[in-house]
Amino acid sequence: MTDSKKAGQAMGLYVDRYELAMALVYWRSGRGDSRAVFDYFFRRTPFRGGYAVFAGLGSIVELLEVLRFRDDELEFLENEGFPRDFLDYLHGFSFNGSVLAPPEGEAVFPLEPIVTVEGSLIEAQVIETMLLNVLNFQTLVATKASRCRRAAGGRLISEFGLRRAQGLGGLWASRAACIGGCDSTSNMAAARQFGLESTGTMAHSNVQVYENELEAFRDFAETHGSDTILLLDTYDTVLSGLPNAIRAAREMEGRGVRIKGVRLDSGDLAYLSRRVRSELDKAGLTWLKIIVSNQLDENVIRSLLEQDACIDGFGIGTALATGAPDGALDGVYKLSEYGGEPRLKASESVAKTTLPGRKTIYRMEDEDGKAMADVICMAEQAVPESMVHPLEPHMHMDISKWKARKLCHEVMRGGERSRCLPSASEAADYSLKSLSLLPPEHHRFENPHIYKVGLSMELRDLRDKLIMDKRKEFMS
Amino acid sequence: MTDSKKAGQAMGLYVDRYELAMALVYWRSGRGDSRAVFDYFFRRTPFRGGYAVFAGLGSIVELLEVLRFRDDELEFLENEGFPRDFLDYLHGFSFNGSVLAPPEGEAVFPLEPIVTVEGSLIEAQVIETMLLNVLNFQTLVATKASRCRRAAGGRLISEFGLRRAQGLGGLWASRAACIGGCDSTSNMAAARQFGLESTGTMAHSNVQVYENELEAFRDFAETHGSDTILLLDTYDTVLSGLPNAIRAAREMEGRGVRIKGVRLDSGDLAYLSRRVRSELDKAGLTWLKIIVSNQLDENVIRSLLEQDACIDGFGIGTALATGAPDGALDGVYKLSEYGGEPRLKASESVAKTTLPGRKTIYRMEDEDGKAMADVICMAEQAVPESMVHPLEPHMHMDISKWKARKLCHEVMRGGERSRCLPSASEAADYSLKSLSLLPPEHHRFENPHIYKVGLSMELRDLRDKLIMDKRKEFMS
Repeated sequence: MTDSKKAGQAMGLYVDRYELAMALVYWRSGRGDSRAVFDYFFRRTPFRGGYAVFAGLGSIVELLEVLRFRDDELEFLENEGFPRDFLDYLHGFSFNGSVLAPPEGEAVFPLEPIVTVEGSLIEAQVIETMLLNVLNFQTLVATKASRCRRAAGGRLISEFGLRRAQGLGGLWASRAACIGGCDSTSNMAAARQFGLESTGTMAHSNVQVYENELEAFRDFAETHGSDTILLLDTYDTVLSGLPNAIRAAREMEGRGVRIKGVRLDSGDLAYLSRRVRSELDKAGLTWLKIIVSNQLDENVIRSLLEQDACIDGFGIGTALATGAPDGALDGVYKLSEYGGEPRLKASESVAKTTLPGRKTIYRMEDEDGKAMADVICMAEQAVPESMVHPLEPHMHMDISKWKARKLCHEVMRGGERSRCLPSASEAADYSLKSLSLLPPEHHRFENPHIYKVGLSMELRDLRDKLIMDKRKEFMS
Repeated sequence: MTDSKKAGQAMGLYVDRYELAMALVYWRSGRGDSRAVFDYFFRRTPFRGGYAVFAGLGSIVELLEVLRFRDDELEFLENEGFPRDFLDYLHGFSFNGSVLAPPEGEAVFPLEPIVTVEGSLIEAQVIETMLLNVLNFQTLVATKASRCRRAAGGRLISEFGLRRAQGLGGLWASRAACIGGCDSTSNMAAARQFGLESTGTMAHSNVQVYENELEAFRDFAETHGSDTILLLDTYDTVLSGLPNAIRAAREMEGRGVRIKGVRLDSGDLAYLSRRVRSELDKAGLTWLKIIVSNQLDENVIRSLLEQDACIDGFGIGTALATGAPDGALDGVYKLSEYGGEPRLKASESVAKTTLPGRKTIYRMEDEDGKAMADVICMAEQAVPESMVHPLEPHMHMDISKWKARKLCHEVMRGGERSRCLPSASEAADYSLKSLSLLPPEHHRFENPHIYKVGLSMELRDLRDKLIMDKRKEFMS
């Protein structure tokens, strides 16, 4: 049994109390077994960007497969006031529903019903908190990583954020960062669990425990050979770290070992990287790579490269592992069908009204496979020839000239996975591909072009009819 | 065995690769068993506030007690290139060091060596990532919660953030939120593991599955009786939710059951809460409480109350569980002594230079027990009579008129806990007390007065001498 399966089994209570409070009502009123459909969607792209990178599906499927309420958890719920007969029901509970979703790594957009869960009302309801928790966070971090990847171009980027990650959230942060484009992570637990590349250099303490920096560098290089990356700024980057690193690297070279590089972790990284590159080259150490760290994100990386910084790799910590500055994706999980009937949550504004019924999404692609627009339509209808703006009724668009690709596929049926799920590194490859098919104006960091997501006429009409029906009901 | 112990046992790899890379160097060079002292401290208070609320110690101690490398983890490390003889050493590894810290809930300030770890170099080094991960996050969230508590005054506040929490980080988010001042959490796993009060209402889906809202309210109230809190905004708060809630509440009252309240989750909460209060009171339902949620934080809470909103309780989600807008506390873990000798990490600025040697902190209190200043001094020296500003050499302060209270105590010795640790709710009580002893100007949300943290002359002199020695070394 894998670690994630064990974690999953302990997660019956990783749920908001209200999910169980509602489940109790459904169970008592005999509604619990009726079929329900819920959609996961978000309303705004993170980081004021042009897209989000979908991530977290693999974790969700693993958790749903093993979701149970253990005896000790049920005992706790009894102490919390839940009645014994309901707990007997929960004792036999498992998730037996179906899940539709795009592959991890897919570019996705606001309002799209990205993940659809269909099952009994109780099972589809009680998984809400867990599903939101996983998808909101991993999608946030994968999106952040894709932005760092873009800023860094072909240079190495590594996720270094575990020390500032939000507790155990660091585990999935590393997974999502690699799906979004990081080459590696410092997090050994995540490397092992998700098959990611691990990486690491040295800390200041490693220099401090030696009487002098040169001895520290020698010992480290001796131990780690060609994997060695020496940290230059424990005392003074230019006056101490750099000359000592040059000496240690040359000594190793004299013995036939080329160490990997040096790391800068403070000071002006643009200036220092040029200075260090120049000195290393003068010393004949042209193969040494320069890795930088210290409060990096996509904006700092862009700025450094605009200043012709001589950098081969970036260690990105806090901002990546916590998805700063957003810190959260605003994804929600809303009922769209119950007992075969479409349902909607109204709101004072149409913008916050949900889309009713079972739906599907088509990505409309031009002859080169480039993504031109997405259309959300009823699950059973044919690919529509035109679409309408979700909020601006006069804005129609002919989409008949493009090829339609179904975005979401069934990944679980009857509580078991019905499709082979990609590994994190396969998802990373898919992410690169999906983003490469998105026109460049959607990648722009400043005011990206808004990707067009429309509704089929049928879906729009259904939504508008249900809004009118509801208003008639309580206005009468 | 508790859940946290099980989690702890799976956490040998919850570590940055470089900790193990350094441990290997220490082990090979024969330095691994030498005594080392590391300090945990942060450089800036979160949220531009006047203090931080220390949290996470209980979790750290539990994790350190059970920290081991399992066989399957060692196998993974072998595949990652670590040599077999080192892994044999790790096979028998456990943490046998000591930990000094203040009680959870204590108000703490920048530069203070809040947590001191003393042990063999290897054990004190490899716990770095885990310790930072736990303390940075829990201290961030406890501080955020204390601000929400202050803004809400005596009203109820509940942590609702699991769905937007950063993955499994949600577990400790709820713990820290309750230490910082939340009355309850929606997170059942955290409620169970940490003995917190759990709370929950209903979701929009609970209304949507019924043909009409009134039936949904009746069924919920039937099931949950006096615990019932009805959500008003599924269709329209004023036109639908409120009249239906009034009807359901009166029906229950007719049967002798007073439901608890209603929840507003959208729209203008100030306006709606006054309107709802007025209608409830007109209907004779004066006991119904009004709970609000939707993107709350300490600033929104203050603003609502300034507008005379009629609110009895706040459900605080994303901003609290993720510690927004900061998202991370910048705490670091630095070597201060090795082999009995004080060590320091220099820097281009004295501000970023670490404080060398084994230290202790005294909180200087006036006759009413109010906190006047903290002084950091050498562990063995007597309580100093004056202190000096860490960066401004001309700023001295006489502290002899105040009583000194030692802030940090040994909580682990020889790898075992040497002090009974408080529960989360005991820590919450302690936090209230610690903050009440902090003068009001440090609680101010805007530009709080900076709490005075100084150094003893002995410590300042040691630091300055070591800086000079280091510079002489590489300038020569």
